Amino acid sequence: MRLAVIGVGLIGGSFALALREAGKVSHVVGAGRSRANLELARERRIIDAIAPDAAAAAREADMVLVAAPVAQFPQLFAAIAPSIAQHTVLTDAGSTKRDVIAAARNALGAKIAQFVPAHPVAGAEESGAAAASATLFRERRVVLTPLPDNAPPTLQRVEDAWRACGARITRLAAEEHDAVLAAVSHLPHVLAYALVHDIAGRANAEQLFAYAAGGFRDFTRIASSHPEMWRDICLANRDRLAAELARYQGRLGDIERLLAAGDGGALERLFAEARAARNRWLKSSS
Amino acid sequence: MRLAVIGVGLIGGSFALALREAGKVSHVVGAGRSRANLELARERRIIDAIAPDAAAAAREADMVLVAAPVAQFPQLFAAIAPSIAQHTVLTDAGSTKRDVIAAARNALGAKIAQFVPAHPVAGAEESGAAAASATLFRERRVVLTPLPDNAPPTLQRVEDAWRACGARITRLAAEEHDAVLAAVSHLPHVLAYALVHDIAGRANAEQLFAYAAGGFRDFTRIASSHPEMWRDICLANRDRLAAELARYQGRLGDIERLLAAGDGGALERLFAEARAARNRWLKSSS
Repeated sequence: MRLAVIGVGLIGGSFALALREAGKVSHVVGAGRSRANLELARERRIIDAIAPDAAAAAREADMVLVAAPVAQFPQLFAAIAPSIAQHTVLTDAGSTKRDVIAAARNALGAKIAQFVPAHPVAGAEESGAAAASATLFRERRVVLTPLPDNAPPTLQRVEDAWRACGARITRLAAEEHDAVLAAVSHLPHVLAYALVHDIAGRANAEQLFAYAAGGFRDFTRIASSHPEMWRDICLANRDRLAAELARYQGRLGDIERLLAAGDGGALERLFAEARAARNRWLKSSS
Repeated sequence: MRLAVIGVGLIGGSFALALREAGKVSHVVGAGRSRANLELARERRIIDAIAPDAAAAAREADMVLVAAPVAQFPQLFAAIAPSIAQHTVLTDAGSTKRDVIAAARNALGAKIAQFVPAHPVAGAEESGAAAASATLFRERRVVLTPLPDNAPPTLQRVEDAWRACGARITRLAAEEHDAVLAAVSHLPHVLAYALVHDIAGRANAEQLFAYAAGGFRDFTRIASSHPEMWRDICLANRDRLAAELARYQGRLGDIERLLAAGDGGALERLFAEARAARNRWLKSSS
């Protein structure tokens, strides 16, 4: 199988490495914005060749993975559309799905049937080809949001590829995907970014950071994520994210009222229920 | 040195273990609410003897550590006040300091000079004697908030004990301590509890947790903290915590406005500044 990876970063690079390790690809070509990153990817044997652009990469590929920040998808789909052969399948790694699908529909025309949208729920603060790893997707969830246009064999080829990376495959409707991820991923990222940004901007920031401990470090780990990627996610999913933000502020208002009332019983119940729920989740997911 | 530990949990037990390992104590007596926990502490050789109550534990001790949830301090100080000999020094491990000092002043009378308030900024989700470890405080910060009443030799004895646990000692005024910790510890705990509690209470909680990944796990780690301890902290420091909550909601409002305006440039700057600040902090604190 000849694979084209558009965006050879943490996700795109890991996909290529995992498929290579699984013996599923014979040749990988990469395209992307940063020449230095592509050269590193070639040195690391993540890709065999560097294409001059996305369209050239997609030409003659059996499978194309688009793994760029989601705001670039409209332009990337438009660029590759003419190069996509009839037997080629496309997938992606975008963290939002409604916008990616809309971009694909708009650019690909009838070739939309060849595109099976995917979101590997596996990230890290690191980015770029330097961080790619053949094991990134192992036991991680990859969500497919198939289109009514996808023929079963097309779907199967894409699902097989992600499965060969070691991922656990589930399917969701795109709308459901974006709603779920807004709550458990996009909102927490914004909350962590907001806290660190606020503290960093205070006159006594240095003192505050000096007393931040392990709890703060873990709480804010996701605030070290890729700013451009998260800008794009927030804008692409802004309706769902705004709804989550509003809802969450309502919950903070509840806690403010408990504090003002000095209602220790209700506070302790809330904390205990949260702890119990989290511990059940950890147990069930391990 | 004879040590009395009131509350032989993660913190109290670790203090005893660390001082024993450093060869600083000859005898440790423990008191607490849970007989089972005290027996476990004796089995683990954290303590040598179980006292029937806090007053009995404090009698004949050279040093007393009070390491209970902070709402118990008024009653504990009142109970031990009559047992405290002239040469005895007291310290504590409360996560808030204004309320602990007020409770001590109220109960100890002239013996307040023997009390040097302390807060080891080292926690974990685990609690109880089972989780205690001689290395918990190593390289961790312990904040002393000394009183004008403390004579230098008293202060020195308490500081030496915490230092013997391997801690890095700093000093703050109690007011400053409570303000700083509200921002970098109490607020993040409440934010994490609120998110998990909200998600757990939804009709599709199971689905939401199913798609929560490593970022969510780390962001919410502190939501597995001890509910009673955190109830007490929130109530003891409620004015400062409420101010932080209000401020934070203002920051979330800023982000809501950027989302509504589709201002990708400002969002990306905010995320990039947060990431840079966090990464600088990680570098400087490692």
